[in-house]
Amino acid sequence: MNLDNLLQGSPSNLPILEGTFGIEHESLRIDRKSQKLSHREHPPVLGARSFHPYIQTDYSEPQLELITPIAHSTQEARRFLKAITDVAGRSLSKEDYLWPLSMPPRVSEAEIVIAQLDDEFERHYRQHLAQTYGKRLQSMSGIHYNFGLGKDLLSQLFEQSDYEDFLEFKNDLYLKLAQNFIKYRWLLTYLYGASPIAEKGFFDEDFQRPMRSIRNSQYGYVNKDQVKISYSSLQQYTADIESCVADGSLIAEKEFYSPVRLRGAKYSRDFLKQGITYLEFRCFDLNPFEPLGISQETLDTIHLLALALLWLPAPLEVDQELELAHQMNEKIAIANPLEPLPEMTNTRLIIEALRALIEHFHLKTYYRDLVDRIEDQLADPYLTIGGRLYKNIDNLSLEKFGQKQGQTFSDLAWQAPYALKGFETMELSTQLIMFDVIQKGINLEILDENDQFLKLSVGQHIEYVKNGNMTAKDSFIVPLAMENKTVTKKLLSQNGFPVPDGAKFDYPDTALEAYARFRDKPIVIKPKSTNFGLGISIFRYGASPSDYQRAVELAFAEDKSILVEEYIAGTEYRFFVLDGQTQAVLLRRAANVVGDGKSTIVELVEEKNSSPLRGIDHRSPLEKIQLGEIEKLMLEQQGYNIHSIPDKDVRINLRENSNISTGGDSIDMTEQMHPSYLTLASQMTQAIGAWVCGVDLIIPDYRLAYSPERPNATCIELNFNPLMYMHTYCSEGPGQVVSTRVVEKLFPEVNKAF
Amino acid sequence: MNLDNLLQGSPSNLPILEGTFGIEHESLRIDRKSQKLSHREHPPVLGARSFHPYIQTDYSEPQLELITPIAHSTQEARRFLKAITDVAGRSLSKEDYLWPLSMPPRVSEAEIVIAQLDDEFERHYRQHLAQTYGKRLQSMSGIHYNFGLGKDLLSQLFEQSDYEDFLEFKNDLYLKLAQNFIKYRWLLTYLYGASPIAEKGFFDEDFQRPMRSIRNSQYGYVNKDQVKISYSSLQQYTADIESCVADGSLIAEKEFYSPVRLRGAKYSRDFLKQGITYLEFRCFDLNPFEPLGISQETLDTIHLLALALLWLPAPLEVDQELELAHQMNEKIAIANPLEPLPEMTNTRLIIEALRALIEHFHLKTYYRDLVDRIEDQLADPYLTIGGRLYKNIDNLSLEKFGQKQGQTFSDLAWQAPYALKGFETMELSTQLIMFDVIQKGINLEILDENDQFLKLSVGQHIEYVKNGNMTAKDSFIVPLAMENKTVTKKLLSQNGFPVPDGAKFDYPDTALEAYARFRDKPIVIKPKSTNFGLGISIFRYGASPSDYQRAVELAFAEDKSILVEEYIAGTEYRFFVLDGQTQAVLLRRAANVVGDGKSTIVELVEEKNSSPLRGIDHRSPLEKIQLGEIEKLMLEQQGYNIHSIPDKDVRINLRENSNISTGGDSIDMTEQMHPSYLTLASQMTQAIGAWVCGVDLIIPDYRLAYSPERPNATCIELNFNPLMYMHTYCSEGPGQVVSTRVVEKLFPEVNKAF
Repeated sequence: MNLDNLLQGSPSNLPILEGTFGIEHESLRIDRKSQKLSHREHPPVLGARSFHPYIQTDYSEPQLELITPIAHSTQEARRFLKAITDVAGRSLSKEDYLWPLSMPPRVSEAEIVIAQLDDEFERHYRQHLAQTYGKRLQSMSGIHYNFGLGKDLLSQLFEQSDYEDFLEFKNDLYLKLAQNFIKYRWLLTYLYGASPIAEKGFFDEDFQRPMRSIRNSQYGYVNKDQVKISYSSLQQYTADIESCVADGSLIAEKEFYSPVRLRGAKYSRDFLKQGITYLEFRCFDLNPFEPLGISQETLDTIHLLALALLWLPAPLEVDQELELAHQMNEKIAIANPLEPLPEMTNTRLIIEALRALIEHFHLKTYYRDLVDRIEDQLADPYLTIGGRLYKNIDNLSLEKFGQKQGQTFSDLAWQAPYALKGFETMELSTQLIMFDVIQKGINLEILDENDQFLKLSVGQHIEYVKNGNMTAKDSFIVPLAMENKTVTKKLLSQNGFPVPDGAKFDYPDTALEAYARFRDKPIVIKPKSTNFGLGISIFRYGASPSDYQRAVELAFAEDKSILVEEYIAGTEYRFFVLDGQTQAVLLRRAANVVGDGKSTIVELVEEKNSSPLRGIDHRSPLEKIQLGEIEKLMLEQQGYNIHSIPDKDVRINLRENSNISTGGDSIDMTEQMHPSYLTLASQMTQAIGAWVCGVDLIIPDYRLAYSPERPNATCIELNFNPLMYMHTYCSEGPGQVVSTRVVEKLFPEVNKAF
Repeated sequence: MNLDNLLQGSPSNLPILEGTFGIEHESLRIDRKSQKLSHREHPPVLGARSFHPYIQTDYSEPQLELITPIAHSTQEARRFLKAITDVAGRSLSKEDYLWPLSMPPRVSEAEIVIAQLDDEFERHYRQHLAQTYGKRLQSMSGIHYNFGLGKDLLSQLFEQSDYEDFLEFKNDLYLKLAQNFIKYRWLLTYLYGASPIAEKGFFDEDFQRPMRSIRNSQYGYVNKDQVKISYSSLQQYTADIESCVADGSLIAEKEFYSPVRLRGAKYSRDFLKQGITYLEFRCFDLNPFEPLGISQETLDTIHLLALALLWLPAPLEVDQELELAHQMNEKIAIANPLEPLPEMTNTRLIIEALRALIEHFHLKTYYRDLVDRIEDQLADPYLTIGGRLYKNIDNLSLEKFGQKQGQTFSDLAWQAPYALKGFETMELSTQLIMFDVIQKGINLEILDENDQFLKLSVGQHIEYVKNGNMTAKDSFIVPLAMENKTVTKKLLSQNGFPVPDGAKFDYPDTALEAYARFRDKPIVIKPKSTNFGLGISIFRYGASPSDYQRAVELAFAEDKSILVEEYIAGTEYRFFVLDGQTQAVLLRRAANVVGDGKSTIVELVEEKNSSPLRGIDHRSPLEKIQLGEIEKLMLEQQGYNIHSIPDKDVRINLRENSNISTGGDSIDMTEQMHPSYLTLASQMTQAIGAWVCGVDLIIPDYRLAYSPERPNATCIELNFNPLMYMHTYCSEGPGQVVSTRVVEKLFPEVNKAF
């Protein structure tokens, strides 16, 4: 069976780029103060390590492993890595950061605490590794790149092959890819090797010069000499591995270190029946110039190279050729990072395969550019990561560089902490939920990104979430009731809660006829859609018939429908209620500035807008204040213009409405609000049967208690799908975490770490 | 305490018309064949009589009592009466109808079966009435009119009065109204008396002449002589009633017959503490010219008269004046219906009060017209109901007339049986639900008519329903998932159900890049919004790259987004699934006519549109076929125009789409469809967690079974809030009742009578 001209014989429209991608990223937690391995425990907010799909401990207690879910493009994989890195960064103690280099800072054997996992075998396995290789060696870190060929791609390739059995075809194809990966591994070591330095005391004898990749050399993970595994066939591979485990030279199959591992089954023998489903490329050093440890360009170059390895012929004499390749890799790994490749490496063969592949399948210019980049680096070792890292070596140490890079990257996670990196285009509330979900180790699938539709799961337990808090916990009819102001009012009123009396009128006649109903009552008469206060009349002590008539006419001059409502004096507060409990209370204040006696309004607005919490288009918890027509008109009505200098401590409103979306302030009042209102709001949602609800109450004095007889409060609106981020990231007050409470209620079985 | 100038002293903007209204309507079920009392049991579809709020049995088994809920206007009360009458009419055996006259047809004592109620006291009470007054007398029917003064009206009147206690004020006001009601009752007997004839054998001795109102005379319900109840004060009234019950002249307080009954407590004594809350005017004969037994004009006239009775002074010598009034009423009741009022009746006083009231409170012209009508009738007895009825008396019998009117009214209920009379402006599915709810005796409140938002309740159990089947039984997230085609497809596919592969593209480039995914597959390429088939290309056996490209360009010429989807050949069926069970399967056929070899297409369309099921604006189960631009273009493409005469049995499609809303046919396929698809549809809704769902399946051959290996079916859409009426009223096939199933599921505790 020959697979060597399979790609060459395929039609150009073969979905050649179709594949699955996953990234595993290891790194060490470092204490900022001592700049040594952190002795803090694995962050408790991450919950139970035993099932966490995204953030695990690797060999040692401070060694974090970040794992992306299976993605269908390199972009998607890296996007998830970005999000998981962000979550990990903000889950650490602020005193810890992640080491950006594959080689650890200076560390003694005694400092390294083996990961305290629940699983007994895992602990035993790590003890064995410590005895066999030493704990220091195990604290090296790197990136594993999981790659599978797409389903349609595989089946179309199979159809073109002369194979009759799909499993056999697939195993042979992946085996060929693994063989060629080992054969040409030296190129990856050259391009991506980035572990030039072992800090003092790491090895019993210190190296006197930097090399390209300690981790990929004989000084890195290497099995004992007696472990010889052939890649000549899957049968032989299986037999060799099993014999090593049987004679004790390997404690388990996974102790076999190889730059590429066959994946899809726990035991090699099972590949024969179940098939290899993907390969794990394990040889990548952390790129210390990249906050994620690997760049998008590198991910795509490796993808392209993997396809070129399928384009190239397989080794004929597998064991011999791979042994030679191994020697070539060793030579390049231990070479000075600035040393060019040895003459005898056949880079032309690989470059030609890459170019032929791109041409055959009409790949985009982007891929040609990637090959150009490879050629540039082949021509100039200074351009490789190792080359760039070289000049940062200071007195045979990279500790200073590592500290600087690591702390800079760590600080990134705390910039715009309300956003989830990689998913900043989604709604803020959904970003918050996704952060919580990743942190708690709940499986996340984005069913529809534009629609903010998530699928969350833990084992068999599935929950769907749209827009942050629309879930199965609410019934269909309750949000529909809340959406309808008439129905909401009726239901609240039937349950004995205070609501303003009022009615909508479509004709002046019927509005006038209804006068009797409103006489002697404080009322507000307004157009149904309010536009900067035009057409609104307020009668705090009731309206005379003629006043009423004039106000009705004024309102109808602005809109086709008007509202006559009981006037409620007081301040509006938003209560966020979840599952019958008020979680947060927020006061929204109209866009405003407070004078300092020196600055103009323009300057005060600029100053206020410089807050990192203020942005545009609802991608930040607060919006920047505009100085548009409405704001200018509002200033004018108060006798100001944008160049006026307000007196010290004088607050100037720039908007009449208090919406956050028009530059308003958010003030967390959860602590100050009289607790009776928290109870009132939660009782309202219970009466109406809402699981999550934003209750808008007008309260004249938040310090006076509510009682059914003297409510001191009126409910003007119930909101389904209430905003969450505004309660968490406030312009004043501590802010309340609410999205996490939603996730905890959805998955009570997940260890509540907060 | 003087209440006599209370209204006169009130401001003109007093909400004088504010009130509560309720109607109770009794009538006898008559067998169409024998034209005698029906011997059929109380309609079992009405469920348990013990709690039915709308439809009860009165004295005898065939005597239906229709009861409206409390309404806030006469219109609302009559509208409910219309709906309840409609439901009652369609709940009877088609062999029964309701007798439209207060006096029964010829009946013997033995024929009258006392209502077989569960309550022992109620049965015993009816036995007592039979012994005391005779069963025939108890089979007279009439209308009771419940009237209360509005809450705001009462409190504003109280404020203007010199009363200090609201309860006392209210009791005095209602007592005054009751006194004056009895005092001027003779006017109502004159205007509305309509029981002129007792059929042969009703009384032991037959009357030899018609009279205005047997029911309101000494021959109607009259207590024994020893029952003397004074209306001079509430205390005296209570004392008198209690003494009659104590000495056995009344078996219970409710045996006291009076044209007006104080209401709001079970025992009179309780009025002193709890207050009278409304009055029950009991003297109205059924108006046999009205399908509902009472006209809107009568309801408003009585309302106006009640207010005039408050305007007029109260009797000074209550007992004497009421005794005189009683005699006057008797005189008028037993007079010939064409006889004018006696000279001594002071009609001018009442008319003046009515006019003064209207003027004082600036009431609309409508109310002036009502007074004009009263004056017309005072001047001419022929215009009264009694006068109009007189000419229908045939040989001292109204049996023929009663049969004609009763059967005509009964037939009305069966016209447009898909609609609920009185609520025809609401959505059809909501009308169906309201019908079921009224029929089953579930309490109904319309929270928002425009929004089709209902509140249903049985005891403490409340359910809200919007648009016929949006309820708390569905979770919030599931309809949101169904609304999103991408999410629906993913969920179905993840659960192993057949869905068409496909994707949406916003740019030609990305669509072309995706070719590899669709090659060799049957596909359809179409603009996202289809417009009469333009830009659609179907490739049943896959598209070549050039065909694919041309089709993509064609589609993009029509829309900004295009869809490339697996092409599924077959017929689309709608499965209505409720709570995991498929209730109905419908085939929708595009608007079409079938030729008869003689008629033009215009004529065939006219003929088809004449079906009572076809209407416009979704107020009928099917829409009338239009002959607009689209239909004409469709004909043109087939080589026809609207004047063509298609051959016999040739079906001509007038639309491409099969929507009911564009004149399509609905064909009930529930029986014919292979049961495996019914199971498939229900499994889909179970997997997705939908309580109510419209599953659209494409099935090439509905006779072939579904199996997971060979589905023979694909799901193209899941619909929340699926239409119900189209399954029930079909153009072909038996039709399936689905709305009733929804109500049964919402209230399983209600006796399932179907």
